[in-house]
This record gives sequence, structure tokens and C-alpha cells, in this order.
Amino acid sequence: MIVLIQCVDKVGLVAAIASVMAAADCNIISMREHVDTTANLFFTRLVAKQNEDSAVLLQRLKSVLPSNAIVQINPDPEKKIILLVTKEHHCLGDILVRHHFNTLGSKLQCVIGNYDHLQDICQRFEVPFHFISHENIEKNEFESRILSLISEYNCDYLVLAKFMRILSPQFVAQFANRIINIHHSFLPAFVGASPYRQAWLRGVKLIGATAHFVNNDLDEGPIIEQQIIPVNHGYTADDMVKAGKEIEKAVLARALQMVFEDRVFVYNNKTVVFE
Amino acid sequence: MIVLIQCVDKVGLVAAIASVMAAADCNIISMREHVDTTANLFFTRLVAKQNEDSAVLLQRLKSVLPSNAIVQINPDPEKKIILLVTKEHHCLGDILVRHHFNTLGSKLQCVIGNYDHLQDICQRFEVPFHFISHENIEKNEFESRILSLISEYNCDYLVLAKFMRILSPQFVAQFANRIINIHHSFLPAFVGASPYRQAWLRGVKLIGATAHFVNNDLDEGPIIEQQIIPVNHGYTADDMVKAGKEIEKAVLARALQMVFEDRVFVYNNKTVVFE
Amino acid sequence: MIVLIQCVDKVGLVAAIASVMAAADCNIISMREHVDTTANLFFTRLVAKQNEDSAVLLQRLKSVLPSNAIVQINPDPEKKIILLVTKEHHCLGDILVRHHFNTLGSKLQCVIGNYDHLQDICQRFEVPFHFISHENIEKNEFESRILSLISEYNCDYLVLAKFMRILSPQFVAQFANRIINIHHSFLPAFVGASPYRQAWLRGVKLIGATAHFVNNDLDEGPIIEQQIIPVNHGYTADDMVKAGKEIEKAVLARALQMVFEDRVFVYNNKTVVFE
Amino acid sequence: MIVLIQCVDKVGLVAAIASVMAAADCNIISMREHVDTTANLFFTRLVAKQNEDSAVLLQRLKSVLPSNAIVQINPDPEKKIILLVTKEHHCLGDILVRHHFNTLGSKLQCVIGNYDHLQDICQRFEVPFHFISHENIEKNEFESRILSLISEYNCDYLVLAKFMRILSPQFVAQFANRIINIHHSFLPAFVGASPYRQAWLRGVKLIGATAHFVNNDLDEGPIIEQQIIPVNHGYTADDMVKAGKEIEKAVLARALQMVFEDRVFVYNNKTVVFE
Repeated sequence: MIVLIQCVDKVGLVAAIASVMAAADCNIISMREHVDTTANLFFTRLVAKQNEDSAVLLQRLKSVLPSNAIVQINPDPEKKIILLVTKEHHCLGDILVRHHFNTLGSKLQCVIGNYDHLQDICQRFEVPFHFISHENIEKNEFESRILSLISEYNCDYLVLAKFMRILSPQFVAQFANRIINIHHSFLPAFVGASPYRQAWLRGVKLIGATAHFVNNDLDEGPIIEQQIIPVNHGYTADDMVKAGKEIEKAVLARALQMVFEDRVFVYNNKTVVFE
Repeated sequence: MIVLIQCVDKVGLVAAIASVMAAADCNIISMREHVDTTANLFFTRLVAKQNEDSAVLLQRLKSVLPSNAIVQINPDPEKKIILLVTKEHHCLGDILVRHHFNTLGSKLQCVIGNYDHLQDICQRFEVPFHFISHENIEKNEFESRILSLISEYNCDYLVLAKFMRILSPQFVAQFANRIINIHHSFLPAFVGASPYRQAWLRGVKLIGATAHFVNNDLDEGPIIEQQIIPVNHGYTADDMVKAGKEIEKAVLARALQMVFEDRVFVYNNKTVVFE
Repeated sequence: MIVLIQCVDKVGLVAAIASVMAAADCNIISMREHVDTTANLFFTRLVAKQNEDSAVLLQRLKSVLPSNAIVQINPDPEKKIILLVTKEHHCLGDILVRHHFNTLGSKLQCVIGNYDHLQDICQRFEVPFHFISHENIEKNEFESRILSLISEYNCDYLVLAKFMRILSPQFVAQFANRIINIHHSFLPAFVGASPYRQAWLRGVKLIGATAHFVNNDLDEGPIIEQQIIPVNHGYTADDMVKAGKEIEKAVLARALQMVFEDRVFVYNNKTVVFE
Repeated sequence: MIVLIQCVDKVGLVAAIASVMAAADCNIISMREHVDTTANLFFTRLVAKQNEDSAVLLQRLKSVLPSNAIVQINPDPEKKIILLVTKEHHCLGDILVRHHFNTLGSKLQCVIGNYDHLQDICQRFEVPFHFISHENIEKNEFESRILSLISEYNCDYLVLAKFMRILSPQFVAQFANRIINIHHSFLPAFVGASPYRQAWLRGVKLIGATAHFVNNDLDEGPIIEQQIIPVNHGYTADDMVKAGKEIEKAVLARALQMVFEDRVFVYNNKTVVFE
């Protein structure tokens, strides 16, 4: 079983938690714990053998923790996700293959595209694709259509797999810490448009990608995962784009794995990732 | 305060440990825990605020743990170390500078060399250098002289900083899990002589280095740290040696940091490293 | 245009080659050159603007080069490849998606599997899949059936995308330097069976993968690409397998890109890769 | 011998250059060539056997190249360098050790510090240290004293080895593309003060360092080398500073090696680095 706890820090939390587990004969296989002493917050992730009913354990844990503690026992091991895409296929293709072979660690409910370019690949994997154009309509109407569609599904996370429209704060607010984006840069470098061209003009020797939760500031949410690859003067801006796609694909896959395995806590503008 | 515990695993260990800490008002700042379910062994490293006498805590912890538990409270934060070297200076130089500026995290007692090439650099940093030649004497006599010298110092760890003599099992047995070696390869690849030439002949695209504890099998002790760097066809065997020295220096420094910060547990032929 | 030359080294080769190019008004955009002074071999890869007929240039280049020079002008930009697979899908899935979106840089003619597990995914991408079981037949009969099938296609390279049968020297000899394998290890470490279990038992801190051409010694052909990822004590052998699949997929993709872009020369048991 | 050429690109440059080399019986061992097609600039670095007088070759090469070509034959293999430091020792210590063992690839003329903290370590290596305080004087006076001191030495490159004062455009202009800085960040991220605290607040998963030539815009000159290391939520801002020092040391060492081996060309705001 997996137990996740986030609460205000105080003396005795680990003892209290572990005692509840021991009293229920639930042997702890692995335990990760982190205290942000600046924020005075406590985070833990336990993997244990389950020898007691989850609801009973939840009750017992809450009784020994601060009143506003966030406790999760065995969060749904198969998150429901919806992808938003535009035209680029590299992240989508990777996710579709993983989903098809049951190695994604989540259930892909559907894909929503503001172009229809990626409909065919979704159909090949029997994943529903919905085309909602942003053209000739107001932004709030566009988002309203997307929200309406999402509401037809169960959805734990929205994944922006190279979705090239900026979502409004109103939209984002409905999915706090539940929208995951892959950003074409090593944030905070090269925020904004044409990052690879910016990188090429600057003659960088590395390019990277960042997977992060989305909040109201574009490109500014809590970072989940970052990786880079070396480049050199021989790379054109197009070569950097190509290399960038490889790293984007890898970073998003890693970030999703961390989230789907319930290894990520979010607070303030940061994450704790128990890898 | 730092608490290290290694013992047979059973239900309730974390609760027992954390309860002792809580009862003593020692708030746990960070806790890393690992169970090797195959070996049925439990490892933990706690960082906590200390509000109780160490001897009292040690007694209380032992009373709640399996009888053969290994418990350490506030292990000496400044390990005493002795370096064994031959002629190569890259690891020694790095360690001397860190020692000089108090960033090594340990006390360098002396350096022992089977050549006198590195005497000068040690003297510049006022670190005692002892020249013990291996020439014209039996191996056991050579080792006996080294042992005799070591016995004049307090010594927690021997660091083989490019020491090019193979130590006998009798010698190694006296320092179980207390000899750290930097190996010129990404173990277990290229065991034995001329690893960089082997690597060059093989046209590898990566070379690496491994820091490990020494046991009776040459090149075979528990691995502490490994890193690699990319190489290519343009590298001569000499270029690989040069690149290898950089990675050896970095890997040894990182391994020493982990050991000196009490982040490394050793068991069977493996390590647990709570980075 | 791309020009590839491999020949015995001597004074004046670059001048001779570049003069031919200049006389034909073919401006050189980029030039990579390598001399293996031990083997006395010269390698070059030119990218140039083409202002002359290829056959004419080939004739002129040969006239200024040693008699046994290997010269290629504009090698087929779309290699024909055939994949051999068993049951694992991670490399195949990645290649199928790239092929589907025309980013593989080659034409995937068909996939041959010694199990039928991967037939479905191939059909979804309209790539022919041929099931040739190795069961209940002699090895030479098994290979004979594969060869017969291959002969029905044009095929520049065979890619062993996790093909778990060992090919005979007789088979390999028919495709000298034209079989590419992805090996589940950072060669030459952990040659042979259950490499991830070996790695786990050894407590390694890195695992890697190697893409290489296949020759008669199992796991011993010329290396094209190698990469690693860090692991730690928290990884089970299964976790290492999972991480290993990610790196296998990435390494094979990179190696294929290098081969398909005509950046790889093979000689002796090594490669020159002009990245 | 080493030949470096930078000039406007045109058809026939490689042929012209290589023909001069061949006519002089100077066999080319390795040749790297790059054309920036946007800037219409040609760069090459040749390693060849020398069978002709350098002055003669220089004359012949210039006669076949565009009039404004920059040609260097056997640039001084031992650059003269001067270090500017403040209080941090990690880069200085590394450079002093390399210098001491003749592996730096340059001649360290002296060290100039605006504090006297690092005088002792320089004296241990018999490297002159000059203390020039910036306190209680105008900036132009401070720089004037530094310039006066530098003028007493031959100096090819100034290396800012954690020199924490911003140099004026007037100062920088006197050493165009001859000042090398190590920047405590993965440029262009976290420009300005307290970059590690910025990084910590942002919860980044990587930190990096950049070695670059200095021009008039702070933190904005041509990048020579960049590397990163992974970090996580367990790192305090201080831990990031500590990790950052390791990567700064490594990146500066690599950049200096590239510059001292004459592998770096600078133009516009970029570099070509023939690694």
C-alpha cells in the first residue's frame, strides 16, 4: 500500500504515523520523508504491506495528525488523463505506445486537438480524438468547449503534450496542480516564443526541457523534471528543434511516471519528488 | 544530530525508532529508510534536532531494536583518513586543496607513497608524507611497514588515491569496509591492466570511473559512486587517460563526500547511499 | 550533397578531394575528417552544394585517391531496413511511430518476429509483420526462413530491436556491418544473460545500453552509441529492467539516426561517428 | 602543427588550404571545418605534420585566402594567463594544482585579488599574488591599478576565477575576447545576484554553470562551455551553492582546456568549439 501525507511539521509526526502503521501490522517497506524548514511543512510517502482496511487506517492517521493534514491511502493507481495537443506528434506518439502496452501507468481517456493533424494516430490506437478548433471563436468559447468535453470524462490530470495555446487563468484555476505541461526549454531560460532560435542565436552548448505543473504565470509553475542534452556550433536552429523534441519526449515521460506513481507533492511554487 | 541504524527488518521498526525520538523531543528533519527485502535488512538515516543526551538515546534505541542492530548516533563528523598514493597527482591534488580549505569533510592525517614523487605537493600543504618503497622487499614486509605507520595515527578510512599496488587479503581484512579505492573504469568493464587502452581498442563511446570499498577480490568491492563522460573516435588512448583522470577525480570526491557525511551503508557486496 | 570517403592515408588527400570539389564549383558546407594513425586509415564526410553530376564527381574523386578507396556520393538517403523482434515492444514502438511520421530517416520494409506478440502493433501502422517461429525446427532452418523472407525485400540494414535469438556466423556473414543490435548493457560490462540481475546483485550506480554492429562474437561488434542513466539502491532488478528499456530505446534511436544520416564508418572492430 | 583560419566563406577554400599543405608535404592528421551559412563565415582547425617553415606557410596560405582572413600557425602553445579572484578558492585551487603539475596547458603569470584571502594558497605554489583592494577608491582607479599591474606581464588571457566585481566596458574593451569568466548559472537562466537562491526558490531540478568570454553586457558574452548537475528538493540553497562550486570548477577547467588547445573561435556573440 501507498500512504501520502502532507501537513504542518511538528515533533513526533514520524513516530505517530509509524505507530499507527505498526499497530496495524503494516510493515513499512520504504519511507521517504522531507521537511521544508522554511515553510514548516512535512511530507512523507510510505510503501507498506497492507494488513488493515484503508478507511480504518485513514481514520487512525488523521486522528494523530494536525487537523489540516492531507492524507491519501492507496490513491487511484490508474490515473485518468486527457491530452491536449496541437500538431506536434513526438510526445503524443510516445504516450500512445506506452498506453497501448499498459506501461503508461494511467488511463488515457481521450485526446483533444485544436487541429485535426493527430486524429489518425489516435484512431490507430483506438483512443478517442476530439477536434476543437480555436479559429473563428473567442478564447472563452474555445475553452468552454474544451471544458464541456472534459466534463464528459473522469479526468485526474490534463497533459499539455505540446499544446500551443495559452490557457486562461479561469481555465487553469479549475485544475489546480492537475495540468502538466512540457516546456521547450530549460526553465527559466528562454521563456516565450521561438526558444530554440533564441538558443541558437545565443550559441548555447546545452538545450533542455522542463515538465511542470501549470499555474497562472505562463511557463512558471512548479517544476517536476528537467533534463538537458549537449549541443554544439554544428547544430542549426532546426537541429536544435529536433534534438529538443527528443529531450521533451523523455522529460515528459519521466514526469508523468513520477506523478502517476504518486511520488510528487506540490506546494507554494515547488515540488517534492520522491524518486 | 545524525542517527544511523542497520538491523534485521521487522514490523514496527520505524515506529519504535521515531517514538524514541519523539519522546525525547528530537524533531526529525529528514529521514531516509530502505529495506532490502531479499536480504531482510533495514537501513535508516535520520537527521533530527537533538534535545537529549546521545548516550541516553543510544540506550533507548537499542532497547527497542533487534539485538544485533548497529546503531550510531552522531558518528565522528571529522573522519580521520590516510591516503595511499603512487605517482599520479590528480586525485591527491584535489583532496589536498579541499583539506586545506576545510571543505573535505575529514582530517587528512598523512599521505603514504610507494614513490616519493608526491612528497613535495604534500609538504606545500603541510601534510605529512611518508615514503615507503615496495622495491627490494617482500610484499608482506612492504605491507607491514605501511601498517606500522598507520598504527601511529588514528585512522577511520584508508583512501587509495591511485595507489597502484595490490593489497593482500591479510592487509584488507584489517580494514573491512574502511578502504576506499578509485578504479580507472566503469566497473565491471575493463577489469585489470591498461583499461584505457582496452577501451580505446574497443572504440567505446563512454568512459567512466568507479569508487568502491575494497574487499579481497581485486576491483570487486561494494560500489559507492560511478560516473561517466562521453568520448569519441577522435580520442587517442592518451586522451582517454586524460579524460579518465578528470572523471576519477570527480567520482572519488563525490564518494568521499557521501562516506564522510555518513550517507553510506555497506552490506553483502553492495551499498545503500542516501544521497 | 554528401560525400563519404575511406582509404589508406597519405599526404595530400584533403587537397586532392577538395580540389575536385572546388573545380566542380561544389562549395563545402561542412567537412569532418579523421585519420587513425595506428591503422593508417583516412575517413572523411563532406556536405557540399552540388553543381556537378554525381557520376562525374565519383569518377574524378576516384582518379585522385588510392586505388582501393571507398567512395560514396549521395548514398541513398532513405535506407531500407527490416526489424527482427521477439516480444519486447519498447524499441519497436518507438521506431514505428518515427516511421509513421517520416522522422525515422529510413524506410521500414517489414518486421520479422519469432513470436507473434508484436503483430498487432505493426498492423496498426500498416507495416508488414512476418511470424517465423524458431520452435521445433533446427537453427539453420530458422535462419534459412528468415533469409528467404529478407530476400523478398530490398534491405540495407537489419535492426535487431530486442531480438533474443543468437544469429549464426553464417547468417551474420551475409550482412557484414549491416546488422545493428541494441545490447542491454554498457558493453563490455555484463555480457551474457540477465544483465540487469547481474547489475542489481553488484549494486551498480549506473546502467547503460550499447548499440553496435553485430559480428561473429556475441556482444562484441563495433560500438555506435552508448548512454547511461543513474540508478541507486532503491531500484529493484525489475526497476532496472524498466529504466534499461528507456535507455535502450534512446540509444537505438540515436544510433539509427547516425547510421541513416551516413555519419558512421566501420573498420577493424571500431567505428568513426561524425556526429 | 596547428593551423587556424577564419574568413569569409567561398567555394574552394578547403581545396586552396589543403593544396598549400600538400605542396609543402604537410600531411593533415585531423581537420575540423565549419561554415556558418547565416554569417557566411568559414572556420577551420588543422592538425598536420610540419615539413615547411611556418612563415612560408603563412605567406602561402594568405595568398590563397580572402584578404581579411585571420590565419594562425602554431599559436603559442603555452598561453600566458592572469587570474582575477575575490575570496572563493574552488576554481583557483584547481587551476593552481594543474599549473603546478604542468597539466594546465598555460603559464599562470600571477593572481590578482581584491581581497587578500587567497594570497596564502598562491604562495604555497610560488605563484605571485597581488592584492588590489577595490575599497575606498573609485572604480576607474581600481581598474587602472589592475591594468597597470597586468601591463607588467605578458598576458594572453584574463581568467575571472570567481572575481565578484563587474568590469567596466572600458576595461573589457582592452581585452576583446580575451577575458574568460565562469558564471554561476546555466546562462541565460538566473542572471544577476544570488542565482542559487533564485534556483532554490524556483525548485529547479538541475543547476549548471557557464564559462564564457566577457563582453560589455554582464553575463552575456560568447559561451564556451556549459554543464549541469541534477539536484532535488532535498538540497538547501547552501547545498546548491556547494554543488554549484563543483560544476563551476569542472566547467571552467574544460573551457580553459578548449581555449588553451586553440579549439575555440569567437565571432558575433557565439563560439565555434572544435572539441
